[in-house]
Amino acid sequence: MKLNGKYYRSVWIDESDKEAVCIFDQRELPFKVVIKKLRTVEQAAIAIKDMHLRGAPLIGAVGAFSIYLAALEAKKNNVENFLSFIEDCADKIKKTRPTAVNLMWAVDFMIAKIRDMQNLDKVIAVSLEEAEKITAEDAEMSRQIGIHGAKLIREISKKKSGDTVNILTHCNAGWLATVDYGTALAPIYEAFNQGIKVHVWVDETRPRNQGARLTAFELSQQGVPHTLIADNTGGHLMQHEMVDMVIVGSDRTTRCGDVANKIGTYLKALAAKDNGIPFYAALPSSTFDWSLRDGVKEIPIEERDSDEVKYIEGYNGKKIVKVLLTNESSNALNYGFDVTPAKLVDGIITERGVCAANEKALMKMFPEFA
Amino acid sequence: MKLNGKYYRSVWIDESDKEAVCIFDQRELPFKVVIKKLRTVEQAAIAIKDMHLRGAPLIGAVGAFSIYLAALEAKKNNVENFLSFIEDCADKIKKTRPTAVNLMWAVDFMIAKIRDMQNLDKVIAVSLEEAEKITAEDAEMSRQIGIHGAKLIREISKKKSGDTVNILTHCNAGWLATVDYGTALAPIYEAFNQGIKVHVWVDETRPRNQGARLTAFELSQQGVPHTLIADNTGGHLMQHEMVDMVIVGSDRTTRCGDVANKIGTYLKALAAKDNGIPFYAALPSSTFDWSLRDGVKEIPIEERDSDEVKYIEGYNGKKIVKVLLTNESSNALNYGFDVTPAKLVDGIITERGVCAANEKALMKMFPEFA
Repeated sequence: MKLNGKYYRSVWIDESDKEAVCIFDQRELPFKVVIKKLRTVEQAAIAIKDMHLRGAPLIGAVGAFSIYLAALEAKKNNVENFLSFIEDCADKIKKTRPTAVNLMWAVDFMIAKIRDMQNLDKVIAVSLEEAEKITAEDAEMSRQIGIHGAKLIREISKKKSGDTVNILTHCNAGWLATVDYGTALAPIYEAFNQGIKVHVWVDETRPRNQGARLTAFELSQQGVPHTLIADNTGGHLMQHEMVDMVIVGSDRTTRCGDVANKIGTYLKALAAKDNGIPFYAALPSSTFDWSLRDGVKEIPIEERDSDEVKYIEGYNGKKIVKVLLTNESSNALNYGFDVTPAKLVDGIITERGVCAANEKALMKMFPEFA
Repeated sequence: MKLNGKYYRSVWIDESDKEAVCIFDQRELPFKVVIKKLRTVEQAAIAIKDMHLRGAPLIGAVGAFSIYLAALEAKKNNVENFLSFIEDCADKIKKTRPTAVNLMWAVDFMIAKIRDMQNLDKVIAVSLEEAEKITAEDAEMSRQIGIHGAKLIREISKKKSGDTVNILTHCNAGWLATVDYGTALAPIYEAFNQGIKVHVWVDETRPRNQGARLTAFELSQQGVPHTLIADNTGGHLMQHEMVDMVIVGSDRTTRCGDVANKIGTYLKALAAKDNGIPFYAALPSSTFDWSLRDGVKEIPIEERDSDEVKYIEGYNGKKIVKVLLTNESSNALNYGFDVTPAKLVDGIITERGVCAANEKALMKMFPEFA
């Protein structure tokens, strides 16, 4: 997608400097655009762990490129048992975010590809090639999600005789969370590019404000009309016919269609149902956990540092600063996600198409997991 | 209520300095406790307009005291036609918050009391006396709300065999918004004082964060156990049986029981209904607008400055600063309130008792408006 008018993916290898993996330091966005070059596994591990980047697909892609960095490091340091060295690096990377399913999958996939190779130069070449492939596949998956989801937007646009379609989204499931296009935002970008009139309500998404910081920024960079709102506002907008549909992403989805996503998603789904507004989750099929049925009961929800609630980061005109929001002695609690039960989900948009949120429909679309 | 261990109301006349009306500058809370002495109508008007204080009952009380300040000013400046001067002051005060029903009522009530008086000293004495009476009545109203609401908390406590009752509240409807006790918080303070084990989930209440800044502070000062959460979190807590009841305040209530309150209240009511958790609105009967039936359609919702969404105020360790939260060029929209339909409200707690949220029950409790 575009950033300051130039086309980027969220992770890439620069043609002029093939020994570094480039990312944006998302901690600085939207106030500063900082490109980071990761040259070692250690740097990649820090970038993942300290959230220089986030979003399951992007973390997976950077995890894959880490294996390439590990191979380069083995060569540079003349490591004799390079396979064992690379496997140690893989473990290090996997430990940075132990609950990130995509990361585990990508790293394990990479290791499987090179495990039996005798030649380090070959390992370097193959790991680069495979990481590029994973990245390209992820971008293609997002593109497909966009194409399928855009059809839903087009239908609403037709019903409104071409009037603007107002779409509410929560958190950031855009290209900065994936490799390109995004998940929840992919249908919006696709519809916009097709010339459909869209306008996006962007939930700020406390406590980490990914909506305010990333989604508003992304949409602004692509020229998509949007308006930032407090997380509290969506219900009121829905009561007053100011929202035509809701599209969110998902971090984990059960075989029955329950959707775990950023905390607060469930509240928007309730309001959508109460006002007869369609609610969609857009996700690559890699976020399905086919072993789970009841998301509310079975999906463990990460509890994060309570300081994310007590403090907030913002820009003072010179730099990003952290300020206290509350009575210092008061405690806070910070859950990262919540689960929206399938009964509130009108459809799941995947790279294969749009599907009802129930086991029967999902099994029909993904028969290999039936 | 207590502040740093000393008992205060949120507006008072100091015995040692009877020509000033004292308030806390709530813009500084919880980071600094600043008492402001209002000595002129101009100062009172600024305090109301610039939100040094907020909350309908408190604004009404300060409006009433403004008439006393107007009378003092007339005397100090030897104003000949003092009644006309005081009436001009009354208009000035009423214009500070044109939608504040309590303010209109209190100022008009004060003017009616003194309109026919020939003697300025008498006007001064009566206006002080009447403003004190309005204030005392408001405190008593809150106390009664507390007593009625505490019975509901006691019932839940019994059902839980004395285990902690977890109560979620949104925004600040505490003593800092009234004269004493509060509305939504009054039952909690009363239950706590009766020795019932309570714990309060405090919604931070973006965009102005009255929960984080005022409710957490108030509860902390009274020693009531509480935890600050992002506005997005309540639904997840309710899904996991971590909330036993919800109590919120109300700014305007229809004769059918629809409740206008701080934006985001509706979302919590939906989650409470979805999880079978009782949802109560606690309010003095002065917030009823008996002329309205359908709150969603009929109650106009104030649109506030969008910078309240784009920026946030916090404490940097030295002073309160404002920081930017989003992409500077993105627009924001900021509605102040939303309406929770009566179907989601399990009961309305007033100074007369607890009542179902429907016209029949409300007419039975307030037959004079039938």
